[in-house]
Amino acid sequence: MVKTTRLQVKTKGQGDAHDITDGVRRAIAESGLRAGIATIFVVGSTAGITTIEFEPGAIADLNGLFDRLAPRGGDYQHHLRWGDDNGSSHVRAALLGPSITVPFRDSSPLLGTWQQVMLLEFDTRGREREVIVQILGE
Amino acid sequence: MVKTTRLQVKTKGQGDAHDITDGVRRAIAESGLRAGIATIFVVGSTAGITTIEFEPGAIADLNGLFDRLAPRGGDYQHHLRWGDDNGSSHVRAALLGPSITVPFRDSSPLLGTWQQVMLLEFDTRGREREVIVQILGE
Amino acid sequence: MVKTTRLQVKTKGQGDAHDITDGVRRAIAESGLRAGIATIFVVGSTAGITTIEFEPGAIADLNGLFDRLAPRGGDYQHHLRWGDDNGSSHVRAALLGPSITVPFRDSSPLLGTWQQVMLLEFDTRGREREVIVQILGE
Repeated sequence: MVKTTRLQVKTKGQGDAHDITDGVRRAIAESGLRAGIATIFVVGSTAGITTIEFEPGAIADLNGLFDRLAPRGGDYQHHLRWGDDNGSSHVRAALLGPSITVPFRDSSPLLGTWQQVMLLEFDTRGREREVIVQILGE
Repeated sequence: MVKTTRLQVKTKGQGDAHDITDGVRRAIAESGLRAGIATIFVVGSTAGITTIEFEPGAIADLNGLFDRLAPRGGDYQHHLRWGDDNGSSHVRAALLGPSITVPFRDSSPLLGTWQQVMLLEFDTRGREREVIVQILGE
Repeated sequence: MVKTTRLQVKTKGQGDAHDITDGVRRAIAESGLRAGIATIFVVGSTAGITTIEFEPGAIADLNGLFDRLAPRGGDYQHHLRWGDDNGSSHVRAALLGPSITVPFRDSSPLLGTWQQVMLLEFDTRGREREVIVQILGE
């Protein structure tokens, strides 16, 4: 059994973080499946998905790391191709990855209490993001 | 068909690495399934899962990288919120991610000979970790 | 329903990037399944899988980041064990991870237009890589 849910998230540009745990939780509950996995996948190459304790401090700390790893104002060969300004976005997104997979039982994701599913925008401008929650199970 | 196995791992704090390949292998074998995927997911926001050639040198090298990326003694905004000392743990865990998914055939994971599944503790104190091995297949 | 496809990719050593999206797309189409997930997993501990806008600039930028994070000529404890020269490869591969999972509908992966699935070689020499595309669905 496969169920597909699409979450629409409006973001505000690089570093904007969204807690999408409720959307994932609802998709699992509404799937009617009791046990399985939910793959949470962001469409596009300038955003990422991970889990984090979703509070402003930890998010700022993670963004601080990405700012050091791939500074927005750095020199990127990607900029030479399209005249884009989002080389830092591509590097960050490729490093973090576009998806995670979360197990569930009793129609509920097996996350820790302080562990939320986060969409992290890396692009330099706001985007309308589509996140796929693909649920397989029984 | 979905099978859930829970592995309990007692860790010793930041940088403590555990080879959990045998637990994954056993969970697959005992599932009775021949082909499918195993999602290995650590509950909590201060540990991570990846694959590595599990030998002390490579593990020390990886920990060395994380020490440079997110030094334990650095300044973290997360510390301001709870009086915690584990900002470095949250940053590392969010970057590495909480899960990997490994395919299997003939009831055996399709890992390389020198490729083990590792739980890497990032928290500043020892923890009792719960790792979910969620198996789907036929 | 589970379908396993093996992609063989000949690589040229550290930093060599391969767009394997077509292979993933074909594996899904030939599976006969309409909806589900494809786990793309590289066998071995010195390569990684992610998504990226697959163009030379973005790939060079990502390789530049990995060169800074884990320089090929750095000192690695892994070298002391086997006399290997690929400590940088192990660190990079463990950080990026061996797999991603991509949802599909209508027998087509739900990737963005500029989002390709990439195998990134980290080893210091060329390798014959095996990438597993494990497809579950209905």
